[in-house]
Amino acid sequence: MKTPLSGKPAASDLETVVSILSARFGNRASTLPGIRQTHANSLTWVAAQPPDIVVFPDTTEEIVDIVKLCALHQVPIIPFGTGTSFEGHVNAPWGGVSIDTSRMNQLLTVHAEDLDCVIQPGITRKALNEQLRDTGLFFPIDPGADASLGGMVSTRASGTNAVRYGTMKDNVIALKVVLPNGEVMTTARRAKKSSAGYDLTRLMVGAEGTLGLITEITLRLAGIPEAISAGICPFPSVQAACDAAILTIQSGLPIARVELADELQVKAFNLHSHLGLKETPMLFVEFHGTERGVEEQAERFGDIAADLGGGPFEWATKPEERSKLWQARHDAYWSALALRPGCKVIATDVCVPISRLAECVVATQEDIKSTGLVAPIVGHVGDGNFHLTLLCDMEDASDIEKCRAFLHRLVERSLAMEGTCTGEHGIGQEKMKYLLDEHPAATLDAMRAIKRAFDPLNIMNPGKIITL
Amino acid sequence: MKTPLSGKPAASDLETVVSILSARFGNRASTLPGIRQTHANSLTWVAAQPPDIVVFPDTTEEIVDIVKLCALHQVPIIPFGTGTSFEGHVNAPWGGVSIDTSRMNQLLTVHAEDLDCVIQPGITRKALNEQLRDTGLFFPIDPGADASLGGMVSTRASGTNAVRYGTMKDNVIALKVVLPNGEVMTTARRAKKSSAGYDLTRLMVGAEGTLGLITEITLRLAGIPEAISAGICPFPSVQAACDAAILTIQSGLPIARVELADELQVKAFNLHSHLGLKETPMLFVEFHGTERGVEEQAERFGDIAADLGGGPFEWATKPEERSKLWQARHDAYWSALALRPGCKVIATDVCVPISRLAECVVATQEDIKSTGLVAPIVGHVGDGNFHLTLLCDMEDASDIEKCRAFLHRLVERSLAMEGTCTGEHGIGQEKMKYLLDEHPAATLDAMRAIKRAFDPLNIMNPGKIITL
Repeated sequence: MKTPLSGKPAASDLETVVSILSARFGNRASTLPGIRQTHANSLTWVAAQPPDIVVFPDTTEEIVDIVKLCALHQVPIIPFGTGTSFEGHVNAPWGGVSIDTSRMNQLLTVHAEDLDCVIQPGITRKALNEQLRDTGLFFPIDPGADASLGGMVSTRASGTNAVRYGTMKDNVIALKVVLPNGEVMTTARRAKKSSAGYDLTRLMVGAEGTLGLITEITLRLAGIPEAISAGICPFPSVQAACDAAILTIQSGLPIARVELADELQVKAFNLHSHLGLKETPMLFVEFHGTERGVEEQAERFGDIAADLGGGPFEWATKPEERSKLWQARHDAYWSALALRPGCKVIATDVCVPISRLAECVVATQEDIKSTGLVAPIVGHVGDGNFHLTLLCDMEDASDIEKCRAFLHRLVERSLAMEGTCTGEHGIGQEKMKYLLDEHPAATLDAMRAIKRAFDPLNIMNPGKIITL
Repeated sequence: MKTPLSGKPAASDLETVVSILSARFGNRASTLPGIRQTHANSLTWVAAQPPDIVVFPDTTEEIVDIVKLCALHQVPIIPFGTGTSFEGHVNAPWGGVSIDTSRMNQLLTVHAEDLDCVIQPGITRKALNEQLRDTGLFFPIDPGADASLGGMVSTRASGTNAVRYGTMKDNVIALKVVLPNGEVMTTARRAKKSSAGYDLTRLMVGAEGTLGLITEITLRLAGIPEAISAGICPFPSVQAACDAAILTIQSGLPIARVELADELQVKAFNLHSHLGLKETPMLFVEFHGTERGVEEQAERFGDIAADLGGGPFEWATKPEERSKLWQARHDAYWSALALRPGCKVIATDVCVPISRLAECVVATQEDIKSTGLVAPIVGHVGDGNFHLTLLCDMEDASDIEKCRAFLHRLVERSLAMEGTCTGEHGIGQEKMKYLLDEHPAATLDAMRAIKRAFDPLNIMNPGKIITL
């Protein structure tokens, strides 16, 4: 019995694996520095740790072969979708084989009556919805980036639509997974619900590729709503905006999106997208339903907002106006750069019970101010989840230090409010230390026990989530 | 290192545990045959296998002590809620300690703004909703029986409201669990969503007490809808009724309940509840929303039903009429007894993709007819999940044999349609053989690996779900 991998594999094992994969996959494998670099970390401030080789398989069977080869030589495997994760998920701290699923990007079957579809993991969110369009159905989870669905499953992604449609954990019916020993597991049947044994589907959702590599996904779909209306509403304070969101949800209005932008983020939107908005806390909202239903929801939301001193509530009923609004919201990352050009963005997220959200955001704004940082905030208010787009001068060691200390305080603040260190980005490498703060020892031991049970060699995306 | 328990523990170990627990818990422990018997199986045809002792703890700490004692002597632990499960979940095939959580029945905290509450596992569904009433919130999952919430978590229960509110997996935020080694794990923070590590919450939901014993539950709540309306609608065939449900869901109507009763079940309702209904396939539906919204939904549903030859669609707008309808639906179990007095009910469930539901129900009806059995059908049509209330003469060996063979065919039929052997009842003892048919070997191995990782001594509800 081999012991779990605890660092770089033997050079000879790496060489063997690289040479076998290069020979077998030809131009579907690459050891070029540029390719290896883009398969490390592209969008984040996390230092890139490239893999030794990148392979682009076409089938589950090919992945089985790669995994078996890596298991034999105890070489790390790093699953790769689009590389849009933030916390170092695709880095290869010990080298190894990056398995890029971008060629496995097919929509395999749509079962319109069952409101589900079967896809390959490399298909992206936008490509999927493009292909679904004629069916009258769509996949509602929208994390902003045009991520691959495999990556979205693996990070337990959610985004702006989660308040109505849930997160990835609520929208995956079944998975096909190549386990670290090369066996292929299907986690569930296609029935909408089941009580047949342990919930392996949910165990794989959010496992960040540390328990296996997903090669097929059965997703729940939703009907494209008959009517959609979106709008923006300014508020005198973050507290008032959060209260409006809480009251809206409590009153049972099936709001589809309710996004907070703080005053600095609104300023960034104005700079980047020329929206000409009043620079005050703002809610971006969207309602889905029938024509009559959407109208009623909008009216009620307007009343709630007005009661809290918000307004005027402006509607965008035309699709192009709606798109412009949401494009601005999705460009939060890019727009933030306009506030401090030349800096690197540190995107991070935390999540607290919704009743503590305003308190947490306001305390964070004060911290930003007193630390002298630039960090606009956007929040999925309906979930208590918010994002910081912290701008850091990577040439300035003291700025980096300041940012790190601030991020530490942000997480501690969230944890102190019964929150979590990440609502939707995942642990990756960067939040491993906070996972230890978030859970008691028995919980961490349970996670380690699961990792050991699935991956005794510690070859499946090692150095992420938790160490053995 | 002890080997996993694989049968009855040593008599001396059992005696030691029983005597220590009797001494410590006094009148909160019982070895009386009657008490042990009611803690085996009460409602089902599964033969009762009583535990050696029943203990009624008051606190997590007491449960920790019981579990540590049982671990030391390698004696089985059987978690017990209300004993309303169907598949032998609370039986003690190797004897041991039944831990009855009925005294741990408190609603600990309601966080109205967060739409959540923290409860003890022994509180029942009805008691919880009674206590929540003044908050304007309710817990929507309704499996029919007045089950304990701990049991509902453990069997991944759902029921009539699942089409709108999801199942237990969608409505549990966090759990406190006493693990088989006596350590206490909290699975998650109270934030509405999190990507912080493996989803231990969902792993415990549906684990049927085989991975640990739940001592605290954080539940999602929903706002009590402003308006509710319910109605019944007859259809010329099961196919037409199912098609109406599919079209309703596809069109995005947020139907809260949509329940099929087949012609025999309607006859049973008439016998039991004197409803005077036309004895033809029937949908029981319910809509939640605003006054206007509910009205619109009802209209649209009526149109869809009429297009498929259904109707007249009759509304029950008064709460008492609504209650009468749903009481009748919930009495399916009891009403079925009226069809064949003196028989025992075998309640079972399967679940298939909704597009296959009508086909599966019709084939099952034909099987019932040609076998000469009596078995009315009710279905959670929105989920593709249906229940059989098979009536069996337990004095007649050939009847038992006929019933068993029929159940076998039912499960095989569902599996052949990409379905599952149970949608919401769970595996327990009775469906262990079908779990093996449902999943490939790698999936079953993964489940065994999880069981071994959590419970290497095999003392936590052994002989349920899967054998090591």
